[in-house]
Amino acid sequence: MKSPRLPKIEEEFEKLKETVLSGDNFFLAPHLNPDGDAIGSMLAFYSLLKRLGKKVFLFSQDPIPSNLFFLDGIKKIKRVLPSRIPKNCTAVLFECSVPKRAGDIEKFLAECSKVVNIDHHKTAQLYGDINILDGSSSSTAEIIYRFFYDIKLKINKNEAACLYTGIVTDTGRFHFPATSPRTHEIAALLLQEKFDFSKINDIIYATKPYPSLKLLGRALESLKLLNKGKIAVMTLKLSDFKEFSARAEHTENIINYAMMIPGVKACVLFKEEETRVTATFRSKDEMDVSKVASFFGGGGHKNASGCKLPLPWETAEEKVISRLLEIFK
Amino acid sequence: MKSPRLPKIEEEFEKLKETVLSGDNFFLAPHLNPDGDAIGSMLAFYSLLKRLGKKVFLFSQDPIPSNLFFLDGIKKIKRVLPSRIPKNCTAVLFECSVPKRAGDIEKFLAECSKVVNIDHHKTAQLYGDINILDGSSSSTAEIIYRFFYDIKLKINKNEAACLYTGIVTDTGRFHFPATSPRTHEIAALLLQEKFDFSKINDIIYATKPYPSLKLLGRALESLKLLNKGKIAVMTLKLSDFKEFSARAEHTENIINYAMMIPGVKACVLFKEEETRVTATFRSKDEMDVSKVASFFGGGGHKNASGCKLPLPWETAEEKVISRLLEIFK
Repeated sequence: MKSPRLPKIEEEFEKLKETVLSGDNFFLAPHLNPDGDAIGSMLAFYSLLKRLGKKVFLFSQDPIPSNLFFLDGIKKIKRVLPSRIPKNCTAVLFECSVPKRAGDIEKFLAECSKVVNIDHHKTAQLYGDINILDGSSSSTAEIIYRFFYDIKLKINKNEAACLYTGIVTDTGRFHFPATSPRTHEIAALLLQEKFDFSKINDIIYATKPYPSLKLLGRALESLKLLNKGKIAVMTLKLSDFKEFSARAEHTENIINYAMMIPGVKACVLFKEEETRVTATFRSKDEMDVSKVASFFGGGGHKNASGCKLPLPWETAEEKVISRLLEIFK
Repeated sequence: MKSPRLPKIEEEFEKLKETVLSGDNFFLAPHLNPDGDAIGSMLAFYSLLKRLGKKVFLFSQDPIPSNLFFLDGIKKIKRVLPSRIPKNCTAVLFECSVPKRAGDIEKFLAECSKVVNIDHHKTAQLYGDINILDGSSSSTAEIIYRFFYDIKLKINKNEAACLYTGIVTDTGRFHFPATSPRTHEIAALLLQEKFDFSKINDIIYATKPYPSLKLLGRALESLKLLNKGKIAVMTLKLSDFKEFSARAEHTENIINYAMMIPGVKACVLFKEEETRVTATFRSKDEMDVSKVASFFGGGGHKNASGCKLPLPWETAEEKVISRLLEIFK
C-alpha cells in the first residue's frame, strides 16, 4: 500500500495564510495533558491573530502545567468550551494526531467552518481542512516561527518567549536528535528579541517543589540493581506520599534517574496507591518493556510503558520483576 | 584609576594567526580542574595545529573528568611536563586568568618563546605576549570557532564535537545569561558537521554512576528547611560514602538540588570526612554566603563558597548554621 502523500507544506501554509487573513473567529486548542510546545505554539499563534484584530477563543480540556504559568496570555485559556459557536469559526489544533486528542470536542469541531491541524509528529493524521505537518521540525514552535516569517509579521518579545519555550521543552534543551541546525538558527533569531531565556530555563529546569525532591530522595534510597546491573527498581510507598504531602505529579521525571546509570537497560518505578500499585517502565535500545506492561493489562511504547496492578505492593513487585527478567532471556 | 585597555581582539587574532602559521612547536594547557570548555577548546585548537603540520604537546596538571573521555585526542594529554623544551615553543593557555592557574608551569613558561592567553572570562589578566580575551563570548570554544573562521580552515566533525562540548558545558546547555544569539548561530554551524550532539548530551547530562545517585538520595533524605524555608541544609556522613563506595567526586551537583526549591535563598551541604567536615554553600541574589565561609577560614564568591572545619559533624553543623542564620538578619 502506498503511504498517503503528505501535503506540501508551502501550499498548506498559503491556505493557512488566506484563512488567517480572511477569517474573523478562531478557536485554538492543544492536546490533552498539554506540554510546553503545544501551549507555547498556541499562545504565539494567539498573539499573531490578536495583532491582526481577530476574535480568538483559547481552550484546553486538561489543566496547564504550573511551570508554564509565566507565559504571556496563559490566563486567557478556558477549561470549558464556548457556550455558542460564532459564525465561520476556524478551529486550530496544536499537536493533536487525531481530533479527540484535544478532548471531547468532536461535536464542537463539526460546527466549525474549518479545521486546521498543526503538528511536527510523524504520526499525525490528515484530518484537517488544512494540514500543516512537518516531521522535519524539532517542535511545533519551529513551524509557527516559519508562519510568522511567511506572513511577514515581525515576532515580538512575548511571542519569542512562547516559541522558545516550545523549542526548549520539546528538544529537551537542544538535546534530542530531532534538534537541527535550523532549530539553533531559530533560537538565535528568537534570542534577539531579548526576553529572559535564562529565567525560562530556571523555571522549567531548575525549579523543584520540596515534595518532589523528598520523593526523589526516597525513590533513590529504594533503588536497587538486578540482573547484573541491567535492571533498576525503585519503589515509592503510600506512606512516602503521606509523609511529604506529595501527589502523583511530584513523581514526574524520577524514573529517568535510574536510566542514567551506566549499564542499566530497563527500569521500573512502583508507586503504591490506596488500592493498587502503578508500575512505570523505561528501557533502552531493543529492550521492549511494553511487553511487560501489556501482560498486566497496561500499554505504551517499546521504551516507555506502564500498568496498574490491583495487588499489595510486595506481590505486585514480585510478579512484575519476574516478568521483567523474562524479556532479558 | 583607569581600567587597563583590553586588546582589540582583531589585532590579537592577527598576531595569533601569524604565530600559528610561522611556528613549529606548541605547548597547550587548560586550567586546573579542567572543564568541558577548557578541554574542548584545547583539543579543537590542537587539531587545527596538527592539520597545519605542527608539533604539539598537550598538558594538564589535573586529571581530566571521565565524562570528557569521548573527545577526540583526549588520550594525547599528558599529566607531566615535557622533559625538554623545543626551540621557539609557543605556549597557549586556555581559560587561565593567571599563568599559575595552569599549574606549576611558570618555570616552563619562562623558557617558551611566546605565551598566548585565550579566555572569555572578564577577570583574565594581560600576561600573554598575545591575549585573546573576549568577555562577550559565552565560552572559549566560541573564540576558537572564530579563529577557525579567521584562519579559513573548515571545521571538521571532531573539532565541531569538541567546540560543541565547550559551548554546551559552559552555557549549562544554552541556559546561562552569557548565551547569546551568536552562541546559537555557532551551534547551528557546528551541527552541520553531523557529529552525534545528542550522545554528547547523554554522556554529560544523562549519565550518573550508581554511587552518585545513592549519595543524592541520601542527601535529599537528610534535606531540611530552616528559617521559614529560606535555608536548606543537607548532610552526608562518612558512613554514607562507605556504604556506597562513593568518593568526593560523586557529590558533584548535589548542592544545586536544594537551590531548586522555591523560596530557598541559601543552602549548605555538609560532608563528613575522616577528621573534618567540609561545608559547601550556595545562595541567590544578595545573600552573601562567602561571609560564612570566610568566618571559618574558607573562601569563594558571594553565591558559591566553602570551608573546612576540624570538628565532629554535629558541632560543625551547629556552628555553621547559627552563622548562616546571622546573614539573614
